[in-house]
Amino acid sequence: MAQLQNDTFLRALMREPTPYTPVWMMRQAGRYLPEYRESRKTAGSFLQLCKNPSFATEVTLQPLDRYPLLDASILFSDILTVPDAMGLGLYFEEGEGPKFDRTLREEADIKKLHVPDMAELQYVFDAVSSIRTAVNGRVPLIGFAGSPWTLATYMVEGKGGTDFLTIKKMAYARPDLLHHILEVTAQTVMQYLNAQIAAGAQAVMIFDSWGGALSHKAYLEFSLPYMQKIINGLTREADGRIVPRVAFTKGGALWLEAQAEIGADAIGLDWTIDIGQARKRVGDKVALQGNLDPAILLSTTEAIEKEVASILGSYGHGNGHVFNLGHGITQWTPPENAAAMISAVRNFSTQYHE
Amino acid sequence: MAQLQNDTFLRALMREPTPYTPVWMMRQAGRYLPEYRESRKTAGSFLQLCKNPSFATEVTLQPLDRYPLLDASILFSDILTVPDAMGLGLYFEEGEGPKFDRTLREEADIKKLHVPDMAELQYVFDAVSSIRTAVNGRVPLIGFAGSPWTLATYMVEGKGGTDFLTIKKMAYARPDLLHHILEVTAQTVMQYLNAQIAAGAQAVMIFDSWGGALSHKAYLEFSLPYMQKIINGLTREADGRIVPRVAFTKGGALWLEAQAEIGADAIGLDWTIDIGQARKRVGDKVALQGNLDPAILLSTTEAIEKEVASILGSYGHGNGHVFNLGHGITQWTPPENAAAMISAVRNFSTQYHE
Repeated sequence: MAQLQNDTFLRALMREPTPYTPVWMMRQAGRYLPEYRESRKTAGSFLQLCKNPSFATEVTLQPLDRYPLLDASILFSDILTVPDAMGLGLYFEEGEGPKFDRTLREEADIKKLHVPDMAELQYVFDAVSSIRTAVNGRVPLIGFAGSPWTLATYMVEGKGGTDFLTIKKMAYARPDLLHHILEVTAQTVMQYLNAQIAAGAQAVMIFDSWGGALSHKAYLEFSLPYMQKIINGLTREADGRIVPRVAFTKGGALWLEAQAEIGADAIGLDWTIDIGQARKRVGDKVALQGNLDPAILLSTTEAIEKEVASILGSYGHGNGHVFNLGHGITQWTPPENAAAMISAVRNFSTQYHE
Repeated sequence: MAQLQNDTFLRALMREPTPYTPVWMMRQAGRYLPEYRESRKTAGSFLQLCKNPSFATEVTLQPLDRYPLLDASILFSDILTVPDAMGLGLYFEEGEGPKFDRTLREEADIKKLHVPDMAELQYVFDAVSSIRTAVNGRVPLIGFAGSPWTLATYMVEGKGGTDFLTIKKMAYARPDLLHHILEVTAQTVMQYLNAQIAAGAQAVMIFDSWGGALSHKAYLEFSLPYMQKIINGLTREADGRIVPRVAFTKGGALWLEAQAEIGADAIGLDWTIDIGQARKRVGDKVALQGNLDPAILLSTTEAIEKEVASILGSYGHGNGHVFNLGHGITQWTPPENAAAMISAVRNFSTQYHE
């Protein structure tokens, strides 16, 4: 493997000193880039793309080539590869969200759920190896997975972003069934992330996209403990170094103190919380990753620079901040506005690292 | 007007002593009730219903008749009557959310926006008078409106519950235009709620359904100050008594301290926050209304009773709690489960008021 030339991102996740605040963008390889849309033309459905290591490698590198100041790359994939491998039958309909052929609602089906053979997900590990080789040490490569709660919402509801009434009814009427789904999914995600680490992922992130839909008590029962279980089961790199672990619950900033206790090295933040307040609440327990509202990238260079400066200033002096959006970049983002954000982070952040 | 026989709700909003914790449910007159679905059969579109004081009176009374332990009634209407009166052209398509004929995006259109003649909304005030007479003093009647930010999202986006990219782009690129919309809307809502009070509303609630989509800074610039402006402009009842004012931002629990300073008598809570923690954060500045996840009403009597007990216990002893859901009751709720919740609140809460 090529020597890592820029470890700023990894050092910031471990709260070690860095000369500036590193930056990357969730969904940085995506539809807002014309080169991505061009590559997609010949590559088939979204799921076929995820299953094609050569395509995944090509598009993962696109933002690195366009934005030389990016400090990390992230595996091009989808959190739903896991429920797909668990037998739910994932598909994407044009212009709509992901759907599944089957849902997990009947007790008999739930009891049959099991950790799949990781060979089902070999295409992901092949993509990780391929990307790691192609990135060639320019920046670290992030692997990722969905949280058990978030993956369970798709498996039970059959789609994302709803009122979550079916899975919540299960949570309250048959918590034993939901805990079984979450336990099997946590074991699966643990093996999945460990295989990504073995294939070359240099940091990992768990996306709890729908944790914010839960009540206070339910989050602490059905989401957070399963992320903790995964994190506690992750392996180190071959040389014994910790592979930094980021946990991100969208809409989860009320539960920061609890999140800081699960063993993650960094916590992701969406834009609803002031990052300076977040830093006070977690103390020196974890690094923080965030938290610009991606909608701001639709506005003007002046507005973008003002908001970047505001976030950096709110976090203040010292280590432990990775700059990012609070959610994935939208497809309507002008690429030059993403460039303005990335440059602003680099230019404005050195003063906080003297 | 008939003498009020049960002022428990009004007293709790003002943090005065009550013998038990009062309870009502957001959207308590609605599709989960078979008698509501029966009334709807002959009554036309949802908007026609809102514009028909006789129908609004009929369905407002249905939950009171079915659940004698309810401590408040609420005007049957919709927050979008206001943008409709402002000329946006509201309509509802079967099975879909509300839509508007026109959106507010061009500077020329925005500059023309003005406070409409309240005569455009006379049907609402007629409904308030009619309901107040029909309720006949059994419980107080709540009037309500949307927050300026929430109404603006519908006016700019043309629909609800999206990524809010158009209005957020305006917020960052042309804040002057958005502030103009919000100012005109705040003046409109102030007049609208004052007319509801004049017609007989005994408490008012402002629904900021989409405030939780904003960043920390943007909420404090674009949503909260306009709710404060409205609250400061509300009149008292003819006898000089304060008409209690509730402000509710869904997804807004991170901003509780700021919400407690705007002059509202009570703050609504969704289910993401522990109500005991919320109480500690606001101190004795405001009452709190909430906060059961409405999805729990789809489960079992045992689960419902456990969660009601948990919320009451978390709030603890003393005054200033109005029990409610954290959002509107869903149409899939078995009516007997709502009854179980209401009974549990009454039965379990007296111990906290000794």
